[in-house]
Amino acid sequence: MRVGSLTKADPHRIARFLREVGEIGHDPRGGWSRLAFSPEERAAHALFERWAVDLGLSVRTDAVGNTFAELTGEAPGPALLAGSHLDTVPQGGNFDGTAGVAAALEVARLLAEAGGLKRDYSAVVFSGEEGARFGVPCIGSRVATGTLTADTLRELSDREGRSPVECAEEVGLRPEEAAEAAWPDGSVAVFLELHIEQGRVLESHGVPIGIVDAIAGSTRVELTVSGHADHSGATPMPLRRDALAGASELVLEVERQAAAYRTTVATVGRLEVEPGSLTTVPGLARLFLDVRDVDSERQRELVEDLLDRAMRIVARRGLQLSAELISDQSPVVLHKPVRERLARVASGRDIPFRVLPSGASHDAAHVAKKAPTGMLFVPSRNGLSHAPEEWSSIEDIARGAEVMAEALLTLDDQEI
Amino acid sequence: MRVGSLTKADPHRIARFLREVGEIGHDPRGGWSRLAFSPEERAAHALFERWAVDLGLSVRTDAVGNTFAELTGEAPGPALLAGSHLDTVPQGGNFDGTAGVAAALEVARLLAEAGGLKRDYSAVVFSGEEGARFGVPCIGSRVATGTLTADTLRELSDREGRSPVECAEEVGLRPEEAAEAAWPDGSVAVFLELHIEQGRVLESHGVPIGIVDAIAGSTRVELTVSGHADHSGATPMPLRRDALAGASELVLEVERQAAAYRTTVATVGRLEVEPGSLTTVPGLARLFLDVRDVDSERQRELVEDLLDRAMRIVARRGLQLSAELISDQSPVVLHKPVRERLARVASGRDIPFRVLPSGASHDAAHVAKKAPTGMLFVPSRNGLSHAPEEWSSIEDIARGAEVMAEALLTLDDQEI
Repeated sequence: MRVGSLTKADPHRIARFLREVGEIGHDPRGGWSRLAFSPEERAAHALFERWAVDLGLSVRTDAVGNTFAELTGEAPGPALLAGSHLDTVPQGGNFDGTAGVAAALEVARLLAEAGGLKRDYSAVVFSGEEGARFGVPCIGSRVATGTLTADTLRELSDREGRSPVECAEEVGLRPEEAAEAAWPDGSVAVFLELHIEQGRVLESHGVPIGIVDAIAGSTRVELTVSGHADHSGATPMPLRRDALAGASELVLEVERQAAAYRTTVATVGRLEVEPGSLTTVPGLARLFLDVRDVDSERQRELVEDLLDRAMRIVARRGLQLSAELISDQSPVVLHKPVRERLARVASGRDIPFRVLPSGASHDAAHVAKKAPTGMLFVPSRNGLSHAPEEWSSIEDIARGAEVMAEALLTLDDQEI
Repeated sequence: MRVGSLTKADPHRIARFLREVGEIGHDPRGGWSRLAFSPEERAAHALFERWAVDLGLSVRTDAVGNTFAELTGEAPGPALLAGSHLDTVPQGGNFDGTAGVAAALEVARLLAEAGGLKRDYSAVVFSGEEGARFGVPCIGSRVATGTLTADTLRELSDREGRSPVECAEEVGLRPEEAAEAAWPDGSVAVFLELHIEQGRVLESHGVPIGIVDAIAGSTRVELTVSGHADHSGATPMPLRRDALAGASELVLEVERQAAAYRTTVATVGRLEVEPGSLTTVPGLARLFLDVRDVDSERQRELVEDLLDRAMRIVARRGLQLSAELISDQSPVVLHKPVRERLARVASGRDIPFRVLPSGASHDAAHVAKKAPTGMLFVPSRNGLSHAPEEWSSIEDIARGAEVMAEALLTLDDQEI
């Protein structure tokens, strides 16, 4: 058994990769903005490619910008994969996604130093994981796993009204050929993703590794509340049809209803007011709602309940409401044998771990529909993410890479 | 007495002026955007100048862009003035301000046809009346009446961070020389402004003219609620510091407290969320509050009360609050003899009228501090303004012009 030949992960390499990625996409307002299908995202993929080539890996980029760095095996067949993403939300941090890519690169180095595998191993960087720009997350991994097509990509748009197709073409990709990027059935034997927890469970328990058992589903809805734009000085309060006041009631209702269940979170992260003038009663308010739960039924019930409540709020105020479903993703339970393998490796290395669900969605949730998938969390300082201050320990990421490398080595010989 | 020689106002000329101004500043999103110190505002002033020159008036523009069209009198001394403004809020309408300028131009024609006055008469277009762009309304009339200086203009900014000085210079004005634009004491004998009501009082009473007795004061405050930007999926509800949820409570509190008094209005017309991502709990919300009342004490008390309530909301939620006073203008009672003169002229012409306060602020409120001032309202259809649908009857504007012309003729001979 080759497990004994695995060397230690190199924290300095991991730190250096994070630092170099962190030179790309500084936002003048603070933090990092490497949005889906932006030149900044592509620059980060190009950096990944240079690192992979230095390790002797062969690199390819598919039609929608997913980048694969392959350590070719002796007896190719279904491949082993590990990876994450390098894009960020606007003004995000430099660990969300990036930590997992750094770990997958380090896994490639460890496996190569151990003499390689029988199967092919690829470190993968999925494109467009963050839903912030186009309202739909995990574009790259959904195209790869065949659940998102060029037709859908043409219909989405960012707040400037530009589609992912337009943006992806502008950075040299071929989104119209998305179908080519879909993986053939049975081509992936296992996928592992290391990711920052983005919560406080591991930190509060002092545990350096989490093994994810399920990933919460997410339903996203755009709600438009319409009232009437009137002069702020000359319109008596009883005559107003204030769209923002109606929207504000709804924001508080979202918060109140979500708080009623432990596993549920619901958020209005974006709200726009028109015409947005200090001296005009708002005529329109646009809200974007994100409801998540590991309990699929509760997730859908809460969305329905919130829409009912929104209808009652606008009716009482003489406003109008329109709602458009942006995306709806069910919770996903991860592959049990892979989870157990990760747990055994961690135990064998005397690394304390905790099994926990993921409130955030990940590329792993989509790959899990196509191939056996496992996911590791490393602690997030103060539970923070999607913010410039997000931070995880390089040592935890290195430890995670070692667990992944050993799990892949021991899975290499087996039917998974 | 020359009153008999006044001809009728020409509704066709008034309609044509409104139509020609309405060709300037169409907003692709709907309505008109001729913002303070924009090229569109200057184009409207240039149009006014062409109309004035056609009437044989002599035109001058001061350092901050106020435009005066003078009918020179036989025995100059303190001048008679009438006018309003041609700028709009974003996506505003084409009657707010424009109706009063059209009337003041028509007054010049009527007075010229009647053989002129002893005193000078000027139709005036004040620049930058709408506070929407820089947060401070009535820039032109405040500079003219000496209550706003270049120092203050340098400190203000629009949402792109540009000051009125920068913007005014870009359109060829000389805002640094604002002091030159201040009127010498005693140079104005009387100022009249016709304006659309922007409310529903006249319409609901079926009265074609309103005589304004007082103009509400307005206090404007920028409030910044700070919380913490966190991942929308991975941050449990109890751990959130959601700035938008706090801001939403405040919006509803503003609405509730304002509704408690008949003469009070309070509005959050602009609200911005950062980072404004669907997948991030809002870390910051910026609100712009506008409180108005004809009762000065109530106006100030409500602002204090709302700030207290905001402090309690943010403290309960673990958020922070900062507040910055943008502007604070007291209510103004208009000049009684001028009001009475307008009422006598309307009565003499068998025009039903109603005495009422103005909830909206106007250039007249500033000029009133410097010279005897009167104000006429014409009905607004559905009480609408600051919206593309605002509309007033051309006949009502023409009737208003005749009342102003006669009032000025009868005031021409007198010590006011």
